[in-house]
Amino acid sequence: MSIYTTLQSLGITLPEAATPAAAYLPFVQSGDLLFVSGHISKRDGRVLAGQLGRELDTAQGRQAARGVAIDLMGTLHAACGDLRRVRRIVKLLGLVNSTPDYTEQHLVINGASELFGEVFGPAGQHARSAFGVAQLPMGAAVEIELIAQLQD
Amino acid sequence: MSIYTTLQSLGITLPEAATPAAAYLPFVQSGDLLFVSGHISKRDGRVLAGQLGRELDTAQGRQAARGVAIDLMGTLHAACGDLRRVRRIVKLLGLVNSTPDYTEQHLVINGASELFGEVFGPAGQHARSAFGVAQLPMGAAVEIELIAQLQD
Amino acid sequence: MSIYTTLQSLGITLPEAATPAAAYLPFVQSGDLLFVSGHISKRDGRVLAGQLGRELDTAQGRQAARGVAIDLMGTLHAACGDLRRVRRIVKLLGLVNSTPDYTEQHLVINGASELFGEVFGPAGQHARSAFGVAQLPMGAAVEIELIAQLQD
Repeated sequence: MSIYTTLQSLGITLPEAATPAAAYLPFVQSGDLLFVSGHISKRDGRVLAGQLGRELDTAQGRQAARGVAIDLMGTLHAACGDLRRVRRIVKLLGLVNSTPDYTEQHLVINGASELFGEVFGPAGQHARSAFGVAQLPMGAAVEIELIAQLQD
Repeated sequence: MSIYTTLQSLGITLPEAATPAAAYLPFVQSGDLLFVSGHISKRDGRVLAGQLGRELDTAQGRQAARGVAIDLMGTLHAACGDLRRVRRIVKLLGLVNSTPDYTEQHLVINGASELFGEVFGPAGQHARSAFGVAQLPMGAAVEIELIAQLQD
Repeated sequence: MSIYTTLQSLGITLPEAATPAAAYLPFVQSGDLLFVSGHISKRDGRVLAGQLGRELDTAQGRQAARGVAIDLMGTLHAACGDLRRVRRIVKLLGLVNSTPDYTEQHLVINGASELFGEVFGPAGQHARSAFGVAQLPMGAAVEIELIAQLQD
């Protein structure tokens, strides 16, 4: 099953590529590595804000992380033209907006990690780090940065 | 206009390369990628400390981030001998010392991102992540880590 | 003196490679770069938890970071078959579970950085960033992510 068929069967529509901000780019390629900027959690085009352990629980955080993964795939599609050019999802850096007592960042970021596995299969299996940050831009619940390896 | 002329026109003097710490190096090259260690904010050679949302406001944070970018350029110059060997600023990781309620980390790190664009032009446009950390070494306000691609 | 002799002389036994989690991998190789997932601090196979500035002091944090470095070496050994295939420890990302007032993250992560230098010699000297995070998965005291360059 192709990546796009899998996305369709999961009911996922990729978003348009994010409009580049003034000061930086959504991605930069160097050799065959694609460095994708941190994407923050959104819902219906607006920032999905909140701190885990205060306004949001782990299930909500997982959903937020899954949404970020979909946005990252939209950016990968924009960067590559075709997601089949993604040879490997190499690494995620998963940042979770956390109170000083919230300790389930790994479960939150699983919402993104599992979707990459479902959509890309073995090529979607990646290294990663997940941790709790004091805050995120615009109060976002989750931010994820990604490195992918592309076909030459 | 060359990079050094641009720096001069902006009134920027690059600092001497940071003295390597005992336990780690200011940069390591691997292939054509240069991995530059996190640089913390300084003023007049001393740590520029303070937490955003407590001791410092966004404008002060922007200035701190701009100062870190200048220090990073000093390290890039030391690593390369000549900044024209920088083919691309690939990625910044921008850490902002933040209270649990401060949400303008992106505006703070713009102080660095915009300077890379001004000085390096299109080669200075980069991917990045910006987020709020609970604290930084020696209480620094900002820490930025960088990956650059060098000419072969 | 070989790497394994050095480890023996330091009384260090490398752990078995971590069992891969369901959602992600302990490491991914891309070209000659090995991206190693964040490893959290453990003692006797259980999470070594606690926040610096609250339950743990800097000396205890250093020990925790040294332990993470040993676990990372176990993963490097599993990834490479032989640690002599590690051409260079390129970069560490050192995350310290910190109260909003704890500012010695660099001293904590030195516990890992210094061990890499002792065990690998010049090949162990690396770039790095160290910073304080609001929390870590399962309340771990320290988490460290690593990039290494391998022999072709």
